[in-house]
Amino acid sequence: MTSSDIFDQIVEKESFLCVGLDSDIQKLPKHLLRTDDPIFNFNKEIIDATHDIAVAYKPNLAFYESQGVEGWKSLQKTVDYLRQKYPEQYIIADAKRGDIGNTSALYARAFFENMDFDAVTVAPYMGEDSVKPFMNYEGKWVILLALTSNKGAFDFQFNENKKDGTKLFENVLKTSKKWGNNENMMYVVGATKAEMLRDIRVQVPHHFLLVPGVGAQGGSLREVVENGMNDRCGLLVNASRSIIFADDTEEFAAEARKSAKEVQVEMSELLKEYNLVK
Amino acid sequence: MTSSDIFDQIVEKESFLCVGLDSDIQKLPKHLLRTDDPIFNFNKEIIDATHDIAVAYKPNLAFYESQGVEGWKSLQKTVDYLRQKYPEQYIIADAKRGDIGNTSALYARAFFENMDFDAVTVAPYMGEDSVKPFMNYEGKWVILLALTSNKGAFDFQFNENKKDGTKLFENVLKTSKKWGNNENMMYVVGATKAEMLRDIRVQVPHHFLLVPGVGAQGGSLREVVENGMNDRCGLLVNASRSIIFADDTEEFAAEARKSAKEVQVEMSELLKEYNLVK
Repeated sequence: MTSSDIFDQIVEKESFLCVGLDSDIQKLPKHLLRTDDPIFNFNKEIIDATHDIAVAYKPNLAFYESQGVEGWKSLQKTVDYLRQKYPEQYIIADAKRGDIGNTSALYARAFFENMDFDAVTVAPYMGEDSVKPFMNYEGKWVILLALTSNKGAFDFQFNENKKDGTKLFENVLKTSKKWGNNENMMYVVGATKAEMLRDIRVQVPHHFLLVPGVGAQGGSLREVVENGMNDRCGLLVNASRSIIFADDTEEFAAEARKSAKEVQVEMSELLKEYNLVK
Repeated sequence: MTSSDIFDQIVEKESFLCVGLDSDIQKLPKHLLRTDDPIFNFNKEIIDATHDIAVAYKPNLAFYESQGVEGWKSLQKTVDYLRQKYPEQYIIADAKRGDIGNTSALYARAFFENMDFDAVTVAPYMGEDSVKPFMNYEGKWVILLALTSNKGAFDFQFNENKKDGTKLFENVLKTSKKWGNNENMMYVVGATKAEMLRDIRVQVPHHFLLVPGVGAQGGSLREVVENGMNDRCGLLVNASRSIIFADDTEEFAAEARKSAKEVQVEMSELLKEYNLVK
């Protein structure tokens, strides 16, 4: 998938919403637990209810791995379902992987060949050879962690460099942008640190940013847009819990849609304000 | 498992060898590909042939994930087999995970509850709340990446801090050692950077270190010991390819044993030299 494909979807749907499929079995509506594959059935209903207002879906691997072999089957079925029924969707494996080169290549195989994800989130600590194997696939993307939305982001990501005072996350942007381009790399930047988006745009003006932390984690959509939007939107804003767990009755999918719709309406207004849609 | 359990094994076996089960299906002996579960059958023979000279086994998750659901089954069977037949072994999931707190907790569930690993390798970039959920299990361990064995380690891990000139990997040690103690934390330190072990021992004199990079990656065992051994050994040295792929015929397990034995003999000499065994 190209950045133009993503932007076309954004314009058509007036949305840059990514729905995080953090489908924790312990939080699923009870009636689904009696079905053959609760996690997949949950995802399917969420996807059917939100596909026309979301441009991307992002299963976080932890929620599937924690269910062992059954979880992997649910994940595979979810990706296959999206691919077949809603091929326009950008599908992100939120896996935060990264290992020495020959090993990262196998993770890439897992997510891009065995499963047909468009993108994988990758941790930068191990440097270039841990990231590049994910870029050996035409049309596939690395989404590198830069500034994360959690409290622990302050432990290392803001460390200032002796040489030029750049913070670690800035250094990650500055160094890694040479490894690829804005057709095969995005960056994770937490909405909870929206004020940093302005500095980040100095480093990567044209890249798409994947922004978690709006919703349950408390980030503001307007602040994200004011600091981070570029002339092709350049943002995929993720919300997980606030949408998928909006309700835990048999009405969960309709309630998820309502919750997603609220975000999309705000996104549509912002896109108009910035003259990206009419 | 406690550090004393590990040290007891080291003394008894005169070995601090960890065998990396990087069981790449493309490198397995051909005759195994006709069996019902090539990866598990390979691991089983390797384990049976080396269990009395290895103190730990470390499957790298990428090699299992790249095989999808079948790979996860092979992994689960490998851990179960070790647990049942060789309960003294320390079993490490080389997964390099790490996510926001509630998500890391699910990875911990995957590796410590669903599968009975003793330890998981974790990436430090996301900080404290991404690491601590792995420490909520009595007798289980986090092995945090500090200084990795690959070329990309130089991209960020040596960044010097403006405040006090400490390098990022030193800062990771300094900061993270407060999150746990030497009964629930170890660190990954690559053998290819053995001269750095002396600085690392200043920060963490008593912790065990997991040292990859001896063997195929070119690190020297003697240098690792001279710079990193402490009064309870404090080292688990991993070798993967040089042992498990020593041969690709029906004799592969016997050849793997020979290759492991060579390392163990050198380890035994070094342990004697340092008066840790008689």
